[in-house]
Amino acid sequence: MHNYPVGVLGASGYVGRELCALVAGHPALSLAFATAQSQRGESARLGGRDVAFIAPDDADLGSAALVFSALPHGASYQWVARAREAGAKVVDLSADLRPGNPGHAHQAGAGVPAPGSVPYGLPELMRDQVRGSALVANPGCYPTAILLALAPVVARGLAAAGATITVAAASGVTGAGFAPRQDLMFAEVENDFRAYSAGNTHRHLDEMRAVLAALGGDQDLLFTPHLLPVSRGILATLTVPLAAPLADPAALYREAYRGEPFVEIADVPPSLRDVAHRNVARIWVATAAHVRRPTLQIIAAIDNLVKGAAGQAMQNANLLLGLDEPMGLPA
Amino acid sequence: MHNYPVGVLGASGYVGRELCALVAGHPALSLAFATAQSQRGESARLGGRDVAFIAPDDADLGSAALVFSALPHGASYQWVARAREAGAKVVDLSADLRPGNPGHAHQAGAGVPAPGSVPYGLPELMRDQVRGSALVANPGCYPTAILLALAPVVARGLAAAGATITVAAASGVTGAGFAPRQDLMFAEVENDFRAYSAGNTHRHLDEMRAVLAALGGDQDLLFTPHLLPVSRGILATLTVPLAAPLADPAALYREAYRGEPFVEIADVPPSLRDVAHRNVARIWVATAAHVRRPTLQIIAAIDNLVKGAAGQAMQNANLLLGLDEPMGLPA
Amino acid sequence: MHNYPVGVLGASGYVGRELCALVAGHPALSLAFATAQSQRGESARLGGRDVAFIAPDDADLGSAALVFSALPHGASYQWVARAREAGAKVVDLSADLRPGNPGHAHQAGAGVPAPGSVPYGLPELMRDQVRGSALVANPGCYPTAILLALAPVVARGLAAAGATITVAAASGVTGAGFAPRQDLMFAEVENDFRAYSAGNTHRHLDEMRAVLAALGGDQDLLFTPHLLPVSRGILATLTVPLAAPLADPAALYREAYRGEPFVEIADVPPSLRDVAHRNVARIWVATAAHVRRPTLQIIAAIDNLVKGAAGQAMQNANLLLGLDEPMGLPA
Amino acid sequence: MHNYPVGVLGASGYVGRELCALVAGHPALSLAFATAQSQRGESARLGGRDVAFIAPDDADLGSAALVFSALPHGASYQWVARAREAGAKVVDLSADLRPGNPGHAHQAGAGVPAPGSVPYGLPELMRDQVRGSALVANPGCYPTAILLALAPVVARGLAAAGATITVAAASGVTGAGFAPRQDLMFAEVENDFRAYSAGNTHRHLDEMRAVLAALGGDQDLLFTPHLLPVSRGILATLTVPLAAPLADPAALYREAYRGEPFVEIADVPPSLRDVAHRNVARIWVATAAHVRRPTLQIIAAIDNLVKGAAGQAMQNANLLLGLDEPMGLPA
Repeated sequence: MHNYPVGVLGASGYVGRELCALVAGHPALSLAFATAQSQRGESARLGGRDVAFIAPDDADLGSAALVFSALPHGASYQWVARAREAGAKVVDLSADLRPGNPGHAHQAGAGVPAPGSVPYGLPELMRDQVRGSALVANPGCYPTAILLALAPVVARGLAAAGATITVAAASGVTGAGFAPRQDLMFAEVENDFRAYSAGNTHRHLDEMRAVLAALGGDQDLLFTPHLLPVSRGILATLTVPLAAPLADPAALYREAYRGEPFVEIADVPPSLRDVAHRNVARIWVATAAHVRRPTLQIIAAIDNLVKGAAGQAMQNANLLLGLDEPMGLPA
Repeated sequence: MHNYPVGVLGASGYVGRELCALVAGHPALSLAFATAQSQRGESARLGGRDVAFIAPDDADLGSAALVFSALPHGASYQWVARAREAGAKVVDLSADLRPGNPGHAHQAGAGVPAPGSVPYGLPELMRDQVRGSALVANPGCYPTAILLALAPVVARGLAAAGATITVAAASGVTGAGFAPRQDLMFAEVENDFRAYSAGNTHRHLDEMRAVLAALGGDQDLLFTPHLLPVSRGILATLTVPLAAPLADPAALYREAYRGEPFVEIADVPPSLRDVAHRNVARIWVATAAHVRRPTLQIIAAIDNLVKGAAGQAMQNANLLLGLDEPMGLPA
Repeated sequence: MHNYPVGVLGASGYVGRELCALVAGHPALSLAFATAQSQRGESARLGGRDVAFIAPDDADLGSAALVFSALPHGASYQWVARAREAGAKVVDLSADLRPGNPGHAHQAGAGVPAPGSVPYGLPELMRDQVRGSALVANPGCYPTAILLALAPVVARGLAAAGATITVAAASGVTGAGFAPRQDLMFAEVENDFRAYSAGNTHRHLDEMRAVLAALGGDQDLLFTPHLLPVSRGILATLTVPLAAPLADPAALYREAYRGEPFVEIADVPPSLRDVAHRNVARIWVATAAHVRRPTLQIIAAIDNLVKGAAGQAMQNANLLLGLDEPMGLPA
Repeated sequence: MHNYPVGVLGASGYVGRELCALVAGHPALSLAFATAQSQRGESARLGGRDVAFIAPDDADLGSAALVFSALPHGASYQWVARAREAGAKVVDLSADLRPGNPGHAHQAGAGVPAPGSVPYGLPELMRDQVRGSALVANPGCYPTAILLALAPVVARGLAAAGATITVAAASGVTGAGFAPRQDLMFAEVENDFRAYSAGNTHRHLDEMRAVLAALGGDQDLLFTPHLLPVSRGILATLTVPLAAPLADPAALYREAYRGEPFVEIADVPPSLRDVAHRNVARIWVATAAHVRRPTLQIIAAIDNLVKGAAGQAMQNANLLLGLDEPMGLPA
């Protein structure tokens, strides 16, 4: 089988480590390099392999057929441009190129695409744009769960026009990254639960609004994220006002995602455990009882580091390289 | 100071223990008896005192000026009737007598009031009915947080008529009681998060609907509770469609709860830690950005065992006995 | 490749589930039946397969080439006898047949071996006895970690004669089984830590004493287990008085376990994370500084459900069936 | 009642916050200042009071009758000297002045006492030295638990001469301080357990050795600390070889600590919960079964932030100021 060398930029964070482990287990990929500025010279055991971290400047970008960038927002786009110039295909896991992102001061330079101008790597919704591309913007973790939960009703025009869709979502702490932060210390997180970015101000909101509009939705989103005392996982609980009652929403969702290996329509509401360490979005949907206006209740769960980041990036990498989309992603 | 003997029925569960501890620290109450059928003959250290559990049948109900019943739903109302017959005032912490409760087959017997026919012990909303009564139904934990969060807008007619109010709430495991259950074992709860009673089917829904209607609201509630890997606390995140934009919702809430020692209007969204082991509801409120229809976002936090159960029961007991409402409840 | 049907008795507990998952991923085994008295008729998703639980009486024991018994202590030996009569080889994960076990009243019946009369399934120490046998007693979780930690020095006569070896060990809650218990509820375990069976009274003590004696050791063990607020894992911290100073204990241990795929000698003390979901014992050893008498400090970590139970049982099953010992056990 | 102004240096860490809360609830103390270099200008709610943090240089040290220093090791001793020069009594919670501490390069300057030259503030063992002093070194958290556990047998000469006392201890994460650290992030600590400073190299070892020698003990200590996934608490499990069998060790301990309000001799091994948020050391002691050499097993639990730091510092402050030792320390 053909073997493609791939590189990982920003390999020492939670997402970067997950990417290295997935590459290690992938039958058609090999790790060309893994960069980590602050941990350069160190190594880690990832996916059963010893991975040596090098400085980004020491990476031979052109030696890779494809580069994953797990660099921070605002730092990624420049390396994406460099990797493209060196001839590598790129999956950018940062927000820099995603739709709805305001962009950065120096982003409008030579070789840096505008946010939203490259395919959005949510294959279940936009596979055709991704396939054949050389660069994709990998979705955020919350948008992955929420857009997969909403797409079947929104894209079919079944949600009430102009209505407000409410989303209360909760994430494990790895969603906030690997860098030490006072508020993410064990003693600060255990036995607590709280909302953040309240008032509908989270930076993922514009990303979701842009994609919903692209799907034909004109609804507003009211999105409240919360921090959970768990390591990994996102659970999103949504309510969608409907244009008219829906007879069998679960059947609609099963039809919408028929044949998709990474979306599961569940008979009971999913829990974080159902999806931990798996590259799936697990979705439950039902018509709410005891409310007069027809309303859909949807609950979606993903592992923020897998389907919400590294696993989905691997789906995209497989598509960019012409490989089978599920390759290297254990169901 | 006068000293009132009080009894606790169902004293060995999480709520019963919290009640015994509060009685131990109360300057005008003393513990006459504490019953616990399965742990009769045993004792526990509660509030710095050794509390001996006796069988319910061995309790001299008439020796108490007031009896707290922390017995399970369906088992409580009969003991409430007995305690009333023996001359004791009663705070019933079960759902048996609360508004919206369907009642039980044998409940319609001699001496047992119908659900909703006794004052609902949410003093911040219904203090006048409670004061001077001899029997109150102590609210459920979720209803306490949610009704305090909604009352200021609903009672003033500011919520959009006929709209759906969404409530995503999360509770620590003590909300599910003290009895051993497979799904509440440590290894089943840690690192997980999930919704339950999804589809708007939780038994607290009718209680909240009944009280909201009594406050003059005609809105529907869409309520989704979740189980958190924490011991105690409830956090409720609400969205309320408004009849018209509200200039300063926080000011409205401060005004509504002016002088209330057990409601705090917060500048930032509350967390479970802010309220742990305290008899307060802490509420944050703001107008949601980025939605066209005027919408209020409210986040309320309580300790389910204190303001959501035993602490609120103590407010009610103080009112029934003619004592200062905050007595024995450290701020 | 040959395919052996195997059965699992007691399949619904934590160990039984881990066994079913390992069988599902094993290239030469298939699941003939999985029994679970209380959950008969139900099914579970284990190792990516749907496993249907049947009543033990409905299991065709003779249809299996090998039967794993994960039944409780005291209930297992009778089923072991039945399975042997039906012609199946057996790996018994209960304590019933282990050395040092006092045995049960009715155990001394037809077909039931005496405790200690069958090979003890710790392959790294007693591989020759296991291979070629038809029945093994799978070690307890604590004994697995502790005996692997002690064997190199004890079997070589390097520990001080007649000395007391101290073992402070800590286990995650799955070590206590799957049945609901008050003291294992989430709210009782989180943020706590405590010793149990203190005073050197744990039932695993006799098992370890018997095996240590068989290895030629005459030392006493002072063993204190503790309960950790984690789901899985055992960490044992040992001190061993030495007959004489040891120049390079790590080298001794590397030599003792050379070629063993399931024992790792670590350069730094192991943590539970190092071994979670892996079939390894990870051991660190060093001479203690600042004590006058030569003393070895050893720290060993295992996953109690894998190397401490189901994974080790699979090593034994492979040996009984003549397969490669590591088959189906990912490193 | 007389009211003493006190200051807290290093008030924003876990110990400093606990100190501020204790001062807030103390009937004879008031908070003169609370310093926190990195959080100067901010404030926190501690013990029901708003505490404003100022820069250390802005603190009027002479305005305080007594100063608590919760500054880091190596930074504290200079401020201790300044506070003494300004006329304040001082309780130093750092290691700088404790016995066994190697001291610092510039420590041997004007006004800075040598380590071990000031009273060691473990009142149950050395109350007379503390009382009447103007400066005490508050013990470390591990030494508090371990020395209280050992003193009754060591000081009476009951431990075997020259023997090795083993101590396996485990601490919650607040023992490692408030500053953000990668290895103390929630996602790194939950579900893990590991030893640190293995090989008998922890910096508290010399402190304990020095005090044990002062008590007349010639035994060696083999001390292995572990990190627990809990917020607060220390549990130490000790084995002490005895010179001769002890008939009733619990009686001996009850006698040794008779009248001490902050030491509890327990009938069953203590758990972290027994001591959380309390200023007590809870100790269980028994003769180990199944070992030939007479050996004591002792298990001691404290809250590392209370009896292991701030609470004990308050005992010392009360003694320095001539107040009742338990004042402001709820049992």
